[in-house]
Amino acid sequence: MPAALDSAGAPQQQHDLRSAGLSRSSTYSEYLQGFPSFPSHLFASPPAHPHSGTPSPTSRSSSASNPSGSSIDWTREYALERARRAALASLPGLRGVLARLLDASLPWLAVVLTGVCTGVVASCLDVLSAWLGDLRLGACRDMWWMSRGLCCAGLDPGETCRAWRTWGEIAAAEKHVVARALAQYGIYMIFAVLFALTSSAFVNVFAPHAFHTGIPEIKVLLGGYVMSGFLSPMTLVIKSLGLPLAVASGLNLGAEGPLVHVACCICDAVLRLFGTLRTNGARHREILSAAAAAGVSVAFGAPLGGVLFSLEEISTFFPGSTLWQSFVCAIVAAVTLQYIDPYNTGKLALFEVTASQVWRGFELAPWLLLGLAGGVWGAWFIRLNEEWERLRRASGLKNWPVTEVGALALFTAVVSYLIVFMRVPASELVVNLFQDCSGVDPYGLCDSSNTSSVVFLLLVTAFAKTLLTAVTFGASIPAGVILPSLTIGACAGRAVGLVMDQLHKAFPENWIFADCPADGACINPSIYAVVGAASALGGVTRMTISLVVILFELTGAIDIVIQLMMAVMVAKFTGDYFSKNGIYETWINLRNYPFLNTKAEYRRDTVLARHVMTPSNQLVCVSDEGWTVSRLEGLLEQEYYRGFPIVRTEKDRVLLGYVGRAELQEALATIRQVPEVTASTPCFFTPSPRAARPSRSSPAASPSPAPLPPRVLTDCVRRAGAQIPVQLSQDTPMEVVVQMFQRLGLRFVLLTRQGMLMGILTKMVGLHRDSG
Amino acid sequence: MPAALDSAGAPQQQHDLRSAGLSRSSTYSEYLQGFPSFPSHLFASPPAHPHSGTPSPTSRSSSASNPSGSSIDWTREYALERARRAALASLPGLRGVLARLLDASLPWLAVVLTGVCTGVVASCLDVLSAWLGDLRLGACRDMWWMSRGLCCAGLDPGETCRAWRTWGEIAAAEKHVVARALAQYGIYMIFAVLFALTSSAFVNVFAPHAFHTGIPEIKVLLGGYVMSGFLSPMTLVIKSLGLPLAVASGLNLGAEGPLVHVACCICDAVLRLFGTLRTNGARHREILSAAAAAGVSVAFGAPLGGVLFSLEEISTFFPGSTLWQSFVCAIVAAVTLQYIDPYNTGKLALFEVTASQVWRGFELAPWLLLGLAGGVWGAWFIRLNEEWERLRRASGLKNWPVTEVGALALFTAVVSYLIVFMRVPASELVVNLFQDCSGVDPYGLCDSSNTSSVVFLLLVTAFAKTLLTAVTFGASIPAGVILPSLTIGACAGRAVGLVMDQLHKAFPENWIFADCPADGACINPSIYAVVGAASALGGVTRMTISLVVILFELTGAIDIVIQLMMAVMVAKFTGDYFSKNGIYETWINLRNYPFLNTKAEYRRDTVLARHVMTPSNQLVCVSDEGWTVSRLEGLLEQEYYRGFPIVRTEKDRVLLGYVGRAELQEALATIRQVPEVTASTPCFFTPSPRAARPSRSSPAASPSPAPLPPRVLTDCVRRAGAQIPVQLSQDTPMEVVVQMFQRLGLRFVLLTRQGMLMGILTKMVGLHRDSG
Repeated sequence: MPAALDSAGAPQQQHDLRSAGLSRSSTYSEYLQGFPSFPSHLFASPPAHPHSGTPSPTSRSSSASNPSGSSIDWTREYALERARRAALASLPGLRGVLARLLDASLPWLAVVLTGVCTGVVASCLDVLSAWLGDLRLGACRDMWWMSRGLCCAGLDPGETCRAWRTWGEIAAAEKHVVARALAQYGIYMIFAVLFALTSSAFVNVFAPHAFHTGIPEIKVLLGGYVMSGFLSPMTLVIKSLGLPLAVASGLNLGAEGPLVHVACCICDAVLRLFGTLRTNGARHREILSAAAAAGVSVAFGAPLGGVLFSLEEISTFFPGSTLWQSFVCAIVAAVTLQYIDPYNTGKLALFEVTASQVWRGFELAPWLLLGLAGGVWGAWFIRLNEEWERLRRASGLKNWPVTEVGALALFTAVVSYLIVFMRVPASELVVNLFQDCSGVDPYGLCDSSNTSSVVFLLLVTAFAKTLLTAVTFGASIPAGVILPSLTIGACAGRAVGLVMDQLHKAFPENWIFADCPADGACINPSIYAVVGAASALGGVTRMTISLVVILFELTGAIDIVIQLMMAVMVAKFTGDYFSKNGIYETWINLRNYPFLNTKAEYRRDTVLARHVMTPSNQLVCVSDEGWTVSRLEGLLEQEYYRGFPIVRTEKDRVLLGYVGRAELQEALATIRQVPEVTASTPCFFTPSPRAARPSRSSPAASPSPAPLPPRVLTDCVRRAGAQIPVQLSQDTPMEVVVQMFQRLGLRFVLLTRQGMLMGILTKMVGLHRDSG
Repeated sequence: MPAALDSAGAPQQQHDLRSAGLSRSSTYSEYLQGFPSFPSHLFASPPAHPHSGTPSPTSRSSSASNPSGSSIDWTREYALERARRAALASLPGLRGVLARLLDASLPWLAVVLTGVCTGVVASCLDVLSAWLGDLRLGACRDMWWMSRGLCCAGLDPGETCRAWRTWGEIAAAEKHVVARALAQYGIYMIFAVLFALTSSAFVNVFAPHAFHTGIPEIKVLLGGYVMSGFLSPMTLVIKSLGLPLAVASGLNLGAEGPLVHVACCICDAVLRLFGTLRTNGARHREILSAAAAAGVSVAFGAPLGGVLFSLEEISTFFPGSTLWQSFVCAIVAAVTLQYIDPYNTGKLALFEVTASQVWRGFELAPWLLLGLAGGVWGAWFIRLNEEWERLRRASGLKNWPVTEVGALALFTAVVSYLIVFMRVPASELVVNLFQDCSGVDPYGLCDSSNTSSVVFLLLVTAFAKTLLTAVTFGASIPAGVILPSLTIGACAGRAVGLVMDQLHKAFPENWIFADCPADGACINPSIYAVVGAASALGGVTRMTISLVVILFELTGAIDIVIQLMMAVMVAKFTGDYFSKNGIYETWINLRNYPFLNTKAEYRRDTVLARHVMTPSNQLVCVSDEGWTVSRLEGLLEQEYYRGFPIVRTEKDRVLLGYVGRAELQEALATIRQVPEVTASTPCFFTPSPRAARPSRSSPAASPSPAPLPPRVLTDCVRRAGAQIPVQLSQDTPMEVVVQMFQRLGLRFVLLTRQGMLMGILTKMVGLHRDSG
């Protein structure tokens, strides 16, 4: 039964508060200390933050009313969009038909363009990464701008490539073998450090937003946060240049996450050609969701996985039309990449599993164990990464970002050069870990005489890479965490597979291996590597369906989908046991972005909205009497709130509506152009004469004379944003309120009791990026 | 600007109405005639339908307050669940810990049990279908209960199976060859008709809900509709028995859709062991979503596709926990099925594509054409199916359901026996259509000397199957539409592939085929079959991601995922051009189920809630003064509304809250047990004395004496359902209102103006099942 039926409610409320050990005078945030599971930090105590810049007074676009560091209101953006469409629908004749046709085709055009550009950029990045990576090891004679693959193209399989020479050969061709090795080692490290320093310097000087993976920011952005510069062309250029350098530097990082950021930057650049798509915050974000799908699509060659990644992991709202646009964008990007074919393979799948995928029931046990280990490792890795970031901030290391990256690159190069599995590029290692022993085996993974040392090396690699990745991810360089996680998981999985294989060979008669055929081959370690990779990535990112589909598309391992699903599920459950936040959510928290996780559920009925709300006596309201043009103008100058509730009179506080700051500004600017309007002209927010109000209304609202009611103001406000604020009873449980914020994308709700404004709840907008 | 700022609003509103060509006196449904895109039929004119049975007066479970034919209110169900959890959380000591642990593990237990049972039942159905299907052709000597596969098991590949004899051999072993053929033909048809009649009779006599695919009903059910008997054990038994009979009868129908229904029935049966999961409407539906995923999982051997199918196609709400439960349920079901392994293949994938999946750029054109054709065909098929259903109802054919099925089976058998592609089971045909010409070719699909007649036969098969499926889907027999669509699409696709192949052979030098290798083999018709199947199914069901993933898992065709996505997308777009509704939505409309499509978007700003709402003067409200126990009891007897808004006084209509019928009934029953309470005891809905109300409230609400206020009533009502009704301004655009209905799962909203109740909007509950 609604507690709205409380009359004034004071005793009841006092009782509630006392039972929680607090008095009404304490702030709501203190009050909420008792409810740790509740996202109280997301609901701001003041109704809205003052924003730094003064927005331009006349512009009516939503971007003007959504300054950087604020949060958009989805319902408002959709209302603006509806108004725009209504205007478009009323255009007469052929011009109207053409305009509507153009308007309907614009998003598709934008999506296709984004897809094509993303595919092209991804191809360029692939080629550039390969060339830079090879440059550390040697150069093509005469044609230094060629990667090893291009340099040696056209040779028969057995032939030695003479055109390509390692630095050792070039620098010390005739000398001692030790000198040659030292030259090789030295030049390798010089290049590695050089690449890392260049990349980091680019990022720090030109585009601070280009560092890191970018996925946490995109999640927050798509959730409604406004962050200027994050998708700027400069960010695009710097991230596109810095990413191949970072990858080629041999640091433990991946290019997959940053590619999502790159795709979103491309999309934003493309949208500059399409005015309405970019100015409306909601539509802008819908298209960006599609671009994120394209980013994953080219990163893994997994268009379907890209769409699901965008749906599951990144986007806050995913209406049906966005699904389609993501589909189109992901497909176009993948086809473009496949057409350009930078790897010259003709295939999209990066890491094809060539193993025969036959498995036995007893193998479920090690796979589930791998899932469990992935979850534990993921949680531990996140913790490590988080602690390092805190240390980085506390120790002042963050004031020396380029130095940090250089030192890291040097250290990584020194360590990596010693172990073969660490020296080779991670993607190449994963390809080999995912393959069985029927093909070529460049790294001795299948050397059965030497299994124990291979297992040892794999485990050392996994451990070292874990530590290195944990300190790399978050440094001032473009860096993703997906490929390192896959690599670490694949190493560990392969090691477990090898151990199982050895066990089977040692005890072939044991009842455990009863299912195995008699002739020997039973365990396939490459499948263990895939399962291990899935578990590790699941533990770190807490992705589910999209992860399985991506691995599916990545490896073509169709017969082990059930095992992959199980491992991913176990990893996610285990990881969630330690902390609910995946790596991206952890970074969202680390950087204090405001983000209302739509997947979280708050099941707690005891906190009501009135316990948390900012009470109405702390709100700045406008009322339908006593306001003049100059007083409204003064209000706009003095208060930087994003909007003002409208009440009937300041005494009865009967809620009439809400007016946004931008709309009010525009309305005032318009009526100021009417000659009769002076500073002292009274302003009303009701369109018809007040005498028409029924007599049963409060007697305090006595009819005012209203000699010259500036109806223009009303109409302007009405046209500017047909915004009906969402009103809720102040006794609504906060859990329901949070659900409404999540599902409707609200920025605020007004709380009422019997029609009277009692308070407001606003989604908090945090400070803009506190580091980096 | 909110139109809430209109004062009484009469002139404005009159103007709006006049401009729409209507006066206020006309009903809202007439008014909405002008807005065809608006789902006006979903908002009932009276606030709620009277329901037929009188609910039991004392039961407090939500099932009692959700009679069959009504619609649940998700917010209310979740509120009840919160109250239950709060009670559980307050249990002290070890008993509390154990109770909470049990409560948390119950859904998982239910999901695992459902998965295991679904896997077992699906295996049994597979075996039964195979045996019945073989029985039409012959029998195993001595062991008639064995299917051909079992009967002939253990033979070497080349050996002839002597134990299995066709009916022709048995009946006319020594006689003339014509007599033998006739005997074979006759017995085949007799069995076909017999199976169909049995299945249909079962359905009609014992469980009318077991007919058809069941997916439209499950969609509606998961959307909140209450439909008793649809998931009953009897329905489960009859559908499980009728389905193999229907499949074996040779009718053009599939078992995949009905398996989803079977899985949901199993889930409902399992949930009978778990009280709280079944009585709460919202949680019940969450688990049913998981069961639907298991159904698809066993139908196609596609656990991932099942989860996505449940997410995309079936479920209305899909919170994070449901995703997990679906995952688990689908995996457990698939593993169980694989463990039992009814096909003795060791593989889950039904239709493995063995073709090498190399393709050339020019092939995109025919594939996109296939997508286009799939969309057109899908729209046409839906139309055909719909028209036949209308004809069935209009002609009185629906009064002879068993006869209809019998005649249909006879006709199908006569027609099918003539064409080899139609005679064989559809799943077997699809397997062969999806295979290239490197393996066995029992139906001469690869006979290159005879291509034109194969193409002709394939097209005839596709056409005949289309007509037969259109009249079969909807007849009184368990029948799915997925396998027939796949078959038809595969036939058409293979035909197109063969034509392309012939073109290439005829004009190998043409520039179109420039990409082809010189040595001849270029076009692979089996890939065309897969693309065709995807297009046809996409056109009929309008599924997108889930369809691609299902085909993906079904065929293992990993390299053509981009082509499949393109074809599915084109098919969906083309189909949507003709009609927005897929086959399941069409049947939802045909059977008048109330269903608010959560995927639809209504972008129309001109209709406001006050134009559509039932105005408050037509509502039955209770107020906080003037009500006695007997008057409330009288109200419950006279009015069958699901609940009543509470206003302060009947004159000022200030909205205080809302009380559900069930809650009011329980509260009254409770206070009737208090000795002092008599029929004339006044009842209040506010907990504290009215004098405490602040003086600024309306003067009409004068403090009443309240000698014996039965606070018990208030408390009971409060405890029974802590239900805060969602209030909106009456000037909210209907588009926003619809969005709130969709996203929050509301059953009704109350519409207010400045705190006064102005009207109500209720999701309509249709009449229960008007046919079959």
